[in-house]
Amino acid sequence: METHFQRELQDLKEDLLKMAALVEEAISTAVQSLVKRDSDRARKTFEGEDRINKMEIEIEDKCLKLLALRQPMAADLRFIASTMKITTDLERMGDQAVNVAERALSLNQEPQVKPYIDIPRMAEVTQSMVRDVLRAFVNGDSALARSVCARDDVVDGLNDQVFRELLTYMMSDPKTITRAVHLMIICRCLERIADHATNIGEDVIFMVDGRVIKHHAEDKDGNLPA
Amino acid sequence: METHFQRELQDLKEDLLKMAALVEEAISTAVQSLVKRDSDRARKTFEGEDRINKMEIEIEDKCLKLLALRQPMAADLRFIASTMKITTDLERMGDQAVNVAERALSLNQEPQVKPYIDIPRMAEVTQSMVRDVLRAFVNGDSALARSVCARDDVVDGLNDQVFRELLTYMMSDPKTITRAVHLMIICRCLERIADHATNIGEDVIFMVDGRVIKHHAEDKDGNLPA
Repeated sequence: METHFQRELQDLKEDLLKMAALVEEAISTAVQSLVKRDSDRARKTFEGEDRINKMEIEIEDKCLKLLALRQPMAADLRFIASTMKITTDLERMGDQAVNVAERALSLNQEPQVKPYIDIPRMAEVTQSMVRDVLRAFVNGDSALARSVCARDDVVDGLNDQVFRELLTYMMSDPKTITRAVHLMIICRCLERIADHATNIGEDVIFMVDGRVIKHHAEDKDGNLPA
Repeated sequence: METHFQRELQDLKEDLLKMAALVEEAISTAVQSLVKRDSDRARKTFEGEDRINKMEIEIEDKCLKLLALRQPMAADLRFIASTMKITTDLERMGDQAVNVAERALSLNQEPQVKPYIDIPRMAEVTQSMVRDVLRAFVNGDSALARSVCARDDVVDGLNDQVFRELLTYMMSDPKTITRAVHLMIICRCLERIADHATNIGEDVIFMVDGRVIKHHAEDKDGNLPA
Protein backbone atom coordinates (compact mmCIF):
# COMPACT_ATOMS: atom_id res chain seq x y z
CA MET A 1 0.00 0.00 0.00
CA GLU A 2 1.19 3.47 -0.87
CA THR A 3 2.10 5.63 2.09
CA HIS A 4 1.31 9.31 2.34
CA PHE A 5 4.99 10.11 1.90
CA GLN A 6 5.19 8.05 -1.28
CA ARG A 7 2.24 10.00 -2.66
CA GLU A 8 4.02 13.23 -1.83
CA LEU A 9 7.11 12.07 -3.69
CA GLN A 10 4.92 11.05 -6.63
CA ASP A 11 3.38 14.55 -6.62
CA LEU A 12 6.84 16.05 -6.71
CA LYS A 13 7.73 13.95 -9.74
CA GLU A 14 4.60 15.08 -11.53
CA ASP A 15 5.35 18.71 -10.70
CA LEU A 16 8.84 18.33 -12.12
CA LEU A 17 7.52 16.84 -15.36
CA LYS A 18 4.99 19.66 -15.60
CA MET A 19 7.72 22.25 -15.08
CA ALA A 20 9.88 20.56 -17.73
CA ALA A 21 6.93 20.61 -20.16
CA LEU A 22 6.62 24.38 -19.61
CA VAL A 23 10.33 24.80 -20.34
CA GLU A 24 10.03 22.70 -23.48
CA GLU A 25 7.13 24.84 -24.61
CA ALA A 26 9.08 28.03 -23.85
CA ILE A 27 11.97 26.88 -26.02
CA SER A 28 9.56 25.98 -28.79
CA THR A 29 7.60 29.27 -28.75
CA ALA A 30 10.82 31.28 -28.52
CA VAL A 31 12.36 29.59 -31.55
CA GLN A 32 9.08 29.64 -33.45
CA SER A 33 8.85 33.39 -32.84
CA LEU A 34 12.16 33.62 -34.71
CA VAL A 35 11.47 31.13 -37.47
CA LYS A 36 7.92 32.28 -38.19
CA ARG A 37 8.85 35.92 -37.54
CA ASP A 38 5.93 36.05 -35.12
CA SER A 39 6.48 38.45 -32.25
CA ASP A 40 3.29 37.34 -30.47
CA ARG A 41 4.97 34.05 -29.75
CA ALA A 42 7.91 35.89 -28.24
CA ARG A 43 5.50 37.53 -25.83
CA LYS A 44 3.99 34.12 -25.05
CA THR A 45 7.46 33.00 -24.04
CA PHE A 46 7.62 35.81 -21.48
CA GLU A 47 4.29 34.70 -20.00
CA GLY A 48 5.47 31.11 -19.94
CA GLU A 49 8.56 32.12 -18.00
CA ASP A 50 6.35 33.63 -15.32
CA ARG A 51 4.68 30.27 -14.76
CA ILE A 52 8.06 28.53 -14.74
CA ASN A 53 9.32 30.91 -12.06
CA LYS A 54 6.25 30.31 -9.92
CA MET A 55 6.66 26.55 -10.21
CA GLU A 56 10.28 26.80 -9.12
CA ILE A 57 9.22 28.48 -5.88
CA GLU A 58 6.34 26.03 -5.31
CA ILE A 59 8.47 22.94 -5.83
CA GLU A 60 11.24 24.26 -3.62
CA ASP A 61 8.75 24.95 -0.86
CA LYS A 62 7.40 21.43 -1.13
CA CYS A 63 10.93 20.03 -0.95
CA LEU A 64 11.82 22.02 2.14
CA LYS A 65 8.58 20.92 3.82
CA LEU A 66 9.26 17.29 3.00
CA LEU A 67 12.80 17.56 4.35
CA ALA A 68 11.56 19.14 7.56
CA LEU A 69 8.48 17.03 8.20
CA ARG A 70 9.44 13.62 6.78
CA GLN A 71 13.15 13.66 7.52
CA PRO A 72 13.79 11.31 4.62
CA MET A 73 16.83 9.05 4.46
CA ALA A 74 19.15 7.71 1.76
CA ALA A 75 17.50 7.49 -1.66
CA ASP A 76 14.53 9.73 -0.80
CA LEU A 77 16.82 12.37 0.65
CA ARG A 78 18.99 12.33 -2.43
CA PHE A 79 15.90 12.52 -4.62
CA ILE A 80 14.56 15.60 -2.85
CA ALA A 81 17.96 17.30 -2.81
CA SER A 82 18.33 16.64 -6.54
CA THR A 83 14.84 17.94 -7.20
CA MET A 84 15.80 21.27 -5.69
CA LYS A 85 18.85 21.49 -7.91
CA ILE A 86 16.92 20.48 -10.99
CA THR A 87 14.27 23.16 -10.50
CA THR A 88 17.08 25.71 -10.53
CA ASP A 89 18.34 24.27 -13.81
CA LEU A 90 14.84 24.35 -15.29
CA GLU A 91 14.35 27.94 -14.21
CA ARG A 92 17.65 28.92 -15.84
CA MET A 93 16.56 27.18 -19.03
CA GLY A 94 13.42 29.31 -18.95
CA ASP A 95 15.63 32.40 -18.68
CA GLN A 96 17.56 31.29 -21.73
CA ALA A 97 14.32 30.79 -23.68
CA VAL A 98 13.42 34.37 -22.78
CA ASN A 99 16.80 35.53 -24.07
CA VAL A 100 16.06 33.77 -27.36
CA ALA A 101 12.63 35.44 -27.58
CA GLU A 102 14.14 38.87 -26.88
CA ARG A 103 16.66 38.45 -29.68
CA ALA A 104 13.87 37.18 -31.96
CA LEU A 105 11.89 40.35 -31.28
CA SER A 106 14.84 42.45 -32.48
CA LEU A 107 15.53 40.24 -35.48
CA ASN A 108 11.90 40.22 -36.60
CA GLN A 109 12.11 43.94 -37.25
CA GLU A 110 14.80 43.49 -39.91
CA PRO A 111 15.26 41.43 -43.06
CA GLN A 112 16.26 37.83 -42.44
CA VAL A 113 20.03 37.21 -42.78
CA LYS A 114 19.73 33.59 -43.82
CA PRO A 115 17.18 30.78 -43.89
CA TYR A 116 16.82 29.22 -40.47
CA ILE A 117 17.47 25.50 -40.82
CA ASP A 118 20.00 24.49 -38.19
CA ILE A 119 18.58 26.66 -35.43
CA PRO A 120 15.17 24.88 -35.39
CA ARG A 121 17.05 21.57 -35.43
CA MET A 122 19.14 22.68 -32.46
CA ALA A 123 15.92 23.66 -30.70
CA GLU A 124 14.33 20.27 -31.41
CA VAL A 125 17.27 18.32 -30.08
CA THR A 126 17.46 20.60 -27.05
CA GLN A 127 13.75 20.15 -26.31
CA SER A 128 14.08 16.39 -26.55
CA MET A 129 16.97 16.59 -24.06
CA VAL A 130 14.87 18.54 -21.56
CA ARG A 131 11.94 16.13 -21.89
CA ASP A 132 14.01 12.96 -21.70
CA VAL A 133 16.35 14.00 -18.93
CA LEU A 134 13.40 14.70 -16.64
CA ARG A 135 11.85 11.36 -17.54
CA ALA A 136 15.22 9.76 -16.83
CA PHE A 137 15.30 11.45 -13.45
CA VAL A 138 11.82 10.54 -12.25
CA ASN A 139 12.15 6.96 -13.53
CA GLY A 140 15.76 6.51 -12.41
CA ASP A 141 16.66 5.55 -15.99
CA SER A 142 20.40 5.98 -16.41
CA ALA A 143 20.43 4.64 -19.99
CA LEU A 144 18.07 7.41 -21.05
CA ALA A 145 20.21 9.93 -19.13
CA ARG A 146 23.26 8.73 -21.04
CA SER A 147 21.49 9.23 -24.36
CA VAL A 148 20.67 12.79 -23.28
CA CYS A 149 24.33 13.50 -22.46
CA ALA A 150 25.32 12.10 -25.86
CA ARG A 151 22.91 14.47 -27.62
CA ASP A 152 24.84 17.40 -26.18
CA ASP A 153 27.50 16.71 -28.82
CA VAL A 154 24.88 17.03 -31.55
CA VAL A 155 23.85 20.44 -30.22
CA ASP A 156 27.48 21.55 -29.91
CA GLY A 157 28.12 20.38 -33.47
CA LEU A 158 25.17 22.35 -34.85
CA ASN A 159 26.25 25.36 -32.84
CA ASP A 160 29.76 25.22 -34.33
CA GLN A 161 28.31 24.93 -37.79
CA VAL A 162 25.94 27.89 -37.48
CA PHE A 163 28.68 29.88 -35.82
CA ARG A 164 31.11 29.40 -38.68
CA GLU A 165 28.43 30.06 -41.26
CA LEU A 166 27.47 33.31 -39.55
CA LEU A 167 31.10 34.39 -39.43
CA THR A 168 31.31 34.10 -43.23
CA TYR A 169 28.14 36.18 -43.60
CA MET A 170 29.57 38.86 -41.33
CA MET A 171 32.86 38.96 -43.19
CA SER A 172 31.35 39.15 -46.64
CA ASP A 173 28.73 41.75 -45.68
CA PRO A 174 29.33 43.92 -42.62
CA LYS A 175 25.70 45.09 -42.73
CA THR A 176 24.71 41.65 -41.44
CA ILE A 177 26.96 41.85 -38.38
CA THR A 178 24.44 43.00 -35.79
CA ARG A 179 21.85 40.46 -36.87
CA ALA A 180 24.43 37.68 -37.08
CA VAL A 181 25.54 38.44 -33.53
CA HIS A 182 21.92 38.14 -32.37
CA LEU A 183 21.72 34.76 -34.06
CA MET A 184 25.00 33.64 -32.51
CA ILE A 185 23.64 34.52 -29.11
CA ILE A 186 20.43 32.61 -29.80
CA CYS A 187 22.52 29.55 -30.62
CA ARG A 188 24.52 30.00 -27.48
CA CYS A 189 21.33 30.16 -25.43
CA LEU A 190 20.14 26.87 -26.92
CA GLU A 191 23.54 25.39 -26.27
CA ARG A 192 23.34 26.53 -22.63
CA ILE A 193 19.94 24.86 -22.26
CA ALA A 194 21.45 21.66 -23.61
CA ASP A 195 24.29 22.05 -21.09
CA HIS A 196 21.80 22.33 -18.24
CA ALA A 197 20.03 19.17 -19.47
CA THR A 198 23.42 17.44 -19.64
CA ASN A 199 24.22 18.53 -16.09
CA ILE A 200 20.96 16.98 -14.91
CA GLY A 201 21.70 13.84 -16.94
CA GLU A 202 25.08 13.51 -15.24
CA ASP A 203 23.43 13.82 -11.85
CA VAL A 204 20.91 11.12 -12.79
CA ILE A 205 23.69 8.76 -13.84
CA PHE A 206 25.51 9.54 -10.61
CA MET A 207 22.36 8.89 -8.58
CA VAL A 208 21.48 5.68 -10.35
CA ASP A 209 24.87 4.18 -11.06
CA GLY A 210 26.76 5.94 -8.29
CA ARG A 211 29.51 6.99 -10.65
CA VAL A 212 31.01 10.44 -10.98
CA ILE A 213 31.14 11.06 -14.71
CA LYS A 214 30.32 14.67 -14.16
CA HIS A 215 33.64 16.34 -14.18
CA HIS A 216 35.29 13.99 -16.61
CA ALA A 217 32.68 14.73 -19.22
CA GLU A 218 33.28 18.43 -18.89
CA ASP A 219 36.88 18.14 -19.95
CA LYS A 220 35.99 16.70 -23.31
CA ASP A 221 32.70 18.45 -23.89
CA GLY A 222 33.52 21.98 -22.99
CA ASN A 223 35.08 22.58 -26.41
CA LEU A 224 33.89 25.76 -27.95
CA PRO A 225 33.31 26.74 -31.55
CA ALA A 226 36.47 28.04 -33.16
CA MET B 1 28.90 26.10 24.26
CA GLU B 2 29.22 25.19 20.61
CA THR B 3 27.60 21.88 19.68
CA HIS B 4 29.10 19.42 17.27
CA PHE B 5 26.39 20.31 14.75
CA GLN B 6 27.22 24.02 14.99
CA ARG B 7 30.84 23.21 14.29
CA GLU B 8 29.81 21.21 11.25
CA LEU B 9 27.79 24.17 9.96
CA GLN B 10 30.76 26.44 10.61
CA ASP B 11 32.95 24.06 8.60
CA LEU B 12 30.48 24.21 5.77
CA LYS B 13 30.63 28.00 5.76
CA GLU B 14 34.41 27.91 5.63
CA ASP B 15 34.31 25.43 2.75
CA LEU B 16 31.97 27.70 0.83
CA LEU B 17 34.23 30.71 1.33
CA LYS B 18 37.19 28.63 0.21
CA MET B 19 35.33 27.50 -2.90
CA ALA B 20 34.34 31.09 -3.67
CA ALA B 21 37.98 32.18 -3.29
CA LEU B 22 38.97 29.55 -5.86
CA VAL B 23 36.32 30.86 -8.25
CA GLU B 24 37.51 34.43 -7.74
CA GLU B 25 41.04 33.33 -8.50
CA ALA B 26 39.87 31.45 -11.61
CA ILE B 27 38.18 34.59 -12.94
CA SER B 28 41.29 36.61 -12.21
CA THR B 29 43.76 34.22 -13.85
CA ALA B 30 41.47 33.76 -16.86
CA VAL B 31 41.18 37.49 -17.48
CA GLN B 32 44.86 38.05 -16.74
CA SER B 33 45.72 35.43 -19.33
CA LEU B 34 43.90 37.64 -21.82
CA VAL B 35 45.14 41.02 -20.64
CA LYS B 36 48.78 39.98 -20.17
CA ARG B 37 48.61 37.66 -23.20
CA ASP B 38 49.96 34.93 -20.96
CA SER B 39 48.77 31.49 -21.96
CA ASP B 40 50.31 29.87 -18.87
CA ARG B 41 47.69 31.60 -16.78
CA ALA B 42 44.97 30.16 -19.00
CA ARG B 43 46.28 26.71 -18.17
CA LYS B 44 46.30 27.63 -14.48
CA THR B 45 42.61 28.39 -14.81
CA PHE B 46 41.99 24.85 -16.06
CA GLU B 47 43.81 23.42 -13.04
CA GLY B 48 41.84 25.71 -10.74
CA GLU B 49 38.58 24.44 -12.21
CA ASP B 50 39.56 20.91 -11.27
CA ARG B 51 39.84 21.91 -7.63
CA ILE B 52 36.53 23.80 -7.85
CA ASN B 53 34.80 20.69 -9.22
CA LYS B 54 36.21 18.54 -6.46
CA MET B 55 35.04 20.99 -3.82
CA GLU B 56 31.53 20.95 -5.26
CA ILE B 57 31.32 17.20 -4.78
CA GLU B 58 32.84 17.36 -1.29
CA ILE B 59 30.50 20.08 -0.06
CA GLU B 60 27.45 18.35 -1.50
CA ASP B 61 28.41 15.13 0.24
CA LYS B 62 28.77 16.97 3.53
CA CYS B 63 25.35 18.55 3.05
CA LEU B 64 23.65 15.25 2.33
CA LYS B 65 25.30 13.70 5.37
CA LEU B 66 24.17 16.56 7.59
CA LEU B 67 20.62 16.30 6.24
CA ALA B 68 20.55 12.57 6.88
CA LEU B 69 22.29 12.44 10.25
CA ARG B 70 21.28 15.71 11.88
CA GLN B 71 17.80 16.11 10.40
CA PRO B 72 18.02 19.87 10.79
CA MET B 73 14.95 22.06 11.07
CA ALA B 74 13.95 25.53 9.93
CA ALA B 75 16.88 27.92 9.48
CA ASP B 76 19.55 25.20 9.49
CA LEU B 77 17.63 23.17 6.92
CA ARG B 78 17.26 26.18 4.69
CA PHE B 79 20.95 26.99 5.10
CA ILE B 80 22.05 23.50 4.05
CA ALA B 81 19.61 23.42 1.12
CA SER B 82 20.89 26.81 -0.05
CA THR B 83 24.49 25.67 0.32
CA MET B 84 23.83 22.85 -2.13
CA LYS B 85 22.38 25.27 -4.64
CA ILE B 86 25.20 27.76 -4.19
CA THR B 87 27.90 25.16 -4.84
CA THR B 88 26.21 24.49 -8.18
CA ASP B 89 26.34 28.20 -8.97
CA LEU B 90 30.00 28.37 -7.98
CA GLU B 91 30.83 25.39 -10.13
CA ARG B 92 29.10 26.99 -13.12
CA MET B 93 31.07 30.16 -12.52
CA GLY B 94 34.23 28.07 -12.67
CA ASP B 95 33.06 26.72 -16.04
CA GLN B 96 32.59 30.25 -17.31
CA ALA B 97 36.10 31.19 -16.17
CA VAL B 98 37.38 28.24 -18.18
CA ASN B 99 35.46 29.49 -21.21
CA VAL B 100 37.18 32.84 -20.80
CA ALA B 101 40.59 31.17 -20.59
CA GLU B 102 39.90 29.10 -23.72
CA ARG B 103 39.00 32.22 -25.69
CA ALA B 104 42.09 33.96 -24.31
CA LEU B 105 44.26 31.09 -25.58
CA SER B 106 42.89 31.66 -29.10
CA LEU B 107 43.16 35.43 -28.90
CA ASN B 108 46.72 35.35 -27.63
CA GLN B 109 47.83 33.82 -30.93
CA GLU B 110 46.72 36.88 -32.89
CA PRO B 111 47.29 40.63 -32.76
CA GLN B 112 45.22 42.44 -30.17
CA VAL B 113 42.05 44.06 -31.59
CA LYS B 114 41.85 46.82 -29.03
CA PRO B 115 43.29 47.78 -25.66
CA TYR B 116 41.57 45.88 -22.88
CA ILE B 117 40.21 48.41 -20.42
CA ASP B 118 36.57 47.60 -19.77
CA ILE B 119 37.03 43.83 -19.67
CA PRO B 120 39.41 43.90 -16.67
CA ARG B 121 36.98 46.30 -14.98
CA MET B 122 34.11 43.90 -15.63
CA ALA B 123 36.23 41.12 -14.17
CA GLU B 124 37.03 43.16 -11.05
CA VAL B 125 33.41 44.01 -10.36
CA THR B 126 32.41 40.40 -11.01
CA GLN B 127 35.07 39.08 -8.63
CA SER B 128 33.92 41.48 -5.93
CA MET B 129 30.37 40.19 -6.43
CA VAL B 130 31.45 36.58 -5.97
CA ARG B 131 33.44 37.40 -2.85
CA ASP B 132 30.78 39.59 -1.26
CA VAL B 133 27.76 37.46 -2.05
CA LEU B 134 29.33 34.49 -0.30
CA ARG B 135 30.20 36.66 2.68
CA ALA B 136 26.60 37.90 2.63
CA PHE B 137 25.38 34.32 2.64
CA VAL B 138 27.49 32.98 5.46
CA ASN B 139 26.89 36.06 7.60
CA GLY B 140 23.19 36.42 6.71
CA ASP B 141 23.90 40.00 5.62
CA SER B 142 21.06 41.08 3.33
CA ALA B 143 22.38 44.64 2.94
CA LEU B 144 25.61 43.28 1.46
CA ALA B 145 23.55 40.93 -0.75
CA ARG B 146 21.59 43.92 -2.03
CA SER B 147 24.78 45.77 -2.91
CA VAL B 148 25.91 42.72 -4.88
CA CYS B 149 22.63 42.65 -6.83
CA ALA B 150 23.03 46.36 -7.58
CA ARG B 151 26.50 45.76 -9.00
CA ASP B 152 24.97 43.50 -11.64
CA ASP B 153 23.80 46.66 -13.41
CA VAL B 154 27.40 47.91 -13.54
CA VAL B 155 28.50 44.68 -15.19
CA ASP B 156 25.60 44.76 -17.64
CA GLY B 157 26.43 48.38 -18.48
CA LEU B 158 30.08 47.57 -19.16
CA ASN B 159 29.03 44.57 -21.23
CA ASP B 160 26.73 46.70 -23.40
CA GLN B 161 29.50 49.24 -23.85
CA VAL B 162 32.14 46.72 -24.94
CA PHE B 163 29.57 45.02 -27.14
CA ARG B 164 28.77 48.19 -29.04
CA GLU B 165 32.41 49.13 -29.34
CA LEU B 166 33.27 45.71 -30.74
CA LEU B 167 30.43 45.97 -33.26
CA THR B 168 31.96 49.14 -34.65
CA TYR B 169 35.36 47.44 -34.93
CA MET B 170 33.78 44.54 -36.78
CA MET B 171 31.92 46.81 -39.18
CA SER B 172 34.86 48.98 -40.01
CA ASP B 173 37.30 46.09 -40.41
CA PRO B 174 35.90 42.62 -41.15
CA LYS B 175 39.32 41.10 -40.42
CA THR B 176 38.64 41.76 -36.73
CA ILE B 177 35.34 39.84 -36.69
CA THR B 178 36.53 36.50 -35.36
CA ARG B 179 38.57 38.11 -32.60
CA ALA B 180 35.78 40.51 -31.74
CA VAL B 181 33.35 37.61 -31.40
CA HIS B 182 35.76 35.90 -29.01
CA LEU B 183 35.87 39.07 -26.95
CA MET B 184 32.08 39.37 -26.98
CA ILE B 185 31.81 35.86 -25.66
CA ILE B 186 34.35 36.59 -22.93
CA CYS B 187 32.19 39.52 -21.85
CA ARG B 188 29.12 37.33 -21.89
CA CYS B 189 30.88 34.79 -19.68
CA LEU B 190 31.72 37.48 -17.15
CA GLU B 191 28.16 38.71 -17.31
CA ARG B 192 26.90 35.18 -16.66
CA ILE B 193 29.15 34.92 -13.61
CA ALA B 194 27.69 38.19 -12.34
CA ASP B 195 24.21 36.74 -12.96
CA HIS B 196 25.03 33.70 -10.87
CA ALA B 197 26.26 35.96 -8.06
CA THR B 198 23.05 37.97 -8.35
CA ASN B 199 20.97 34.79 -8.15
CA ILE B 200 22.75 33.87 -4.94
CA GLY B 201 22.26 37.41 -3.66
CA GLU B 202 18.52 37.18 -4.26
CA ASP B 203 18.40 33.90 -2.36
CA VAL B 204 20.27 35.49 0.54
CA ILE B 205 17.80 38.38 0.67
CA PHE B 206 14.94 35.87 0.52
CA MET B 207 16.45 33.83 3.31
CA VAL B 208 17.22 36.78 5.53
CA ASP B 209 14.28 39.06 4.85
CA GLY B 210 11.84 36.37 3.76
CA ARG B 211 10.82 38.32 0.72
CA VAL B 212 10.55 36.96 -2.79
CA ILE B 213 12.24 39.61 -4.85
CA LYS B 214 13.66 37.02 -7.19
CA HIS B 215 11.16 36.87 -9.97
CA HIS B 216 9.97 40.42 -9.68
CA ALA B 217 13.45 41.71 -10.13
CA GLU B 218 13.99 39.61 -13.20
CA ASP B 219 11.12 41.28 -14.98
CA LYS B 220 12.79 44.60 -14.88
CA ASP B 221 16.30 43.49 -15.64
CA GLY B 222 17.75 42.97 -12.28
CA ASN B 223 16.90 46.35 -10.77
CA LEU B 224 16.19 45.38 -7.26
CA PRO B 225 14.13 47.27 -4.74
CA ALA B 226 16.57 49.12 -2.52
